[in-house]
Amino acid sequence: MNTHIDFYFDFLSPYAYLAATRIESLAQKHGREVHWHSFRLGVAVVKFMGLKPLMETPLKNDYIRADLKRLAKIMDLPLIEIEKLPDPIPPALAFYAAPKRLRGKIAQTLLTAQWAKGQDVGKVETLKCLLEPLSVSPDIVQSAQDDPAIRALLRHATAQTIERGVFGSPTVVADDELFWGTDRLWLLDRYLGAGGSYEPAREQQF
Amino acid sequence: MNTHIDFYFDFLSPYAYLAATRIESLAQKHGREVHWHSFRLGVAVVKFMGLKPLMETPLKNDYIRADLKRLAKIMDLPLIEIEKLPDPIPPALAFYAAPKRLRGKIAQTLLTAQWAKGQDVGKVETLKCLLEPLSVSPDIVQSAQDDPAIRALLRHATAQTIERGVFGSPTVVADDELFWGTDRLWLLDRYLGAGGSYEPAREQQF
Repeated sequence: MNTHIDFYFDFLSPYAYLAATRIESLAQKHGREVHWHSFRLGVAVVKFMGLKPLMETPLKNDYIRADLKRLAKIMDLPLIEIEKLPDPIPPALAFYAAPKRLRGKIAQTLLTAQWAKGQDVGKVETLKCLLEPLSVSPDIVQSAQDDPAIRALLRHATAQTIERGVFGSPTVVADDELFWGTDRLWLLDRYLGAGGSYEPAREQQF
Repeated sequence: MNTHIDFYFDFLSPYAYLAATRIESLAQKHGREVHWHSFRLGVAVVKFMGLKPLMETPLKNDYIRADLKRLAKIMDLPLIEIEKLPDPIPPALAFYAAPKRLRGKIAQTLLTAQWAKGQDVGKVETLKCLLEPLSVSPDIVQSAQDDPAIRALLRHATAQTIERGVFGSPTVVADDELFWGTDRLWLLDRYLGAGGSYEPAREQQF
């Protein structure tokens, strides 16, 4: 058993926002740390898996809009109407340019700004504003955008994410178990609570 | 509010098997009947949505195999190793040829035979064997296979399923709410329990 769990997400994912509000307390309950990883969902889904983006897929598009609303309601979280997805690259570059210890805080701040408040985290000026209170200077946010080394970090993180078998946002990996989706945090909770295994449910949860 | 819920499934779906074992008791708990609908998942996913079949999609394929195993373990149900999917058309034709009141029982019997015991429900001889104890005669099973009227019923059912916004197996529709996946039966339970609405969860389920 490891002492951490890995949280993989893309800033364009409203499901990642919902899960990001819960993951730290869930991990803490089981004595684990969260390692935060931003990756490019589009590369995994469109390029690697050969599928269409979710929001451009007939039927699924409608389902997901309705599903996000009810999950937000049950989780008692604000959620904006989804009109368009933000450009996920600028926030991901800022994320990898900032000190590693700030990653969780940066992820939570940006996902909440985007999906609870409708601030466009795809815009560099918005990022500067949102990250300065976390002690990430506007200079770092700006220079990250054109820094080949930071771009390489994001590419590398995305390749590593796919290599681990992750293809959705959010996905939590605990030991070698994958938990895809905000709606699987209950299973992660159960897995960690059982010391890294699965047992038949006493109550009929299903 | 309706007095029933609709259960949409394809015989080739192991997730449908898992959910089929629970849906009648869940519906009964909330005073609803289950209407069973077999549809062709391949038509919805491949033709209508333009996606690849799940088991041919990189990454998702591996995830699903592991995920089915752990769900079966938690639900305390037997599940075979999945090598190849059965031809879903013969059982679907038998399903629509049999009397309507037998549909739930037929679905549960065939899904269990396939996914708990590894009997190939894509084979007409196996179907005859499995359905005779339910008072569906071998003649009906056989003649359904080449009957244009039964084929039209299946086509029509599939078209109606897609029209309702359903694209996955299993999906339950209650009133106008869609619940996609075995792992969403808890949400259906919560929805029906709250009289057809969503309320913030008291316990932190996520």
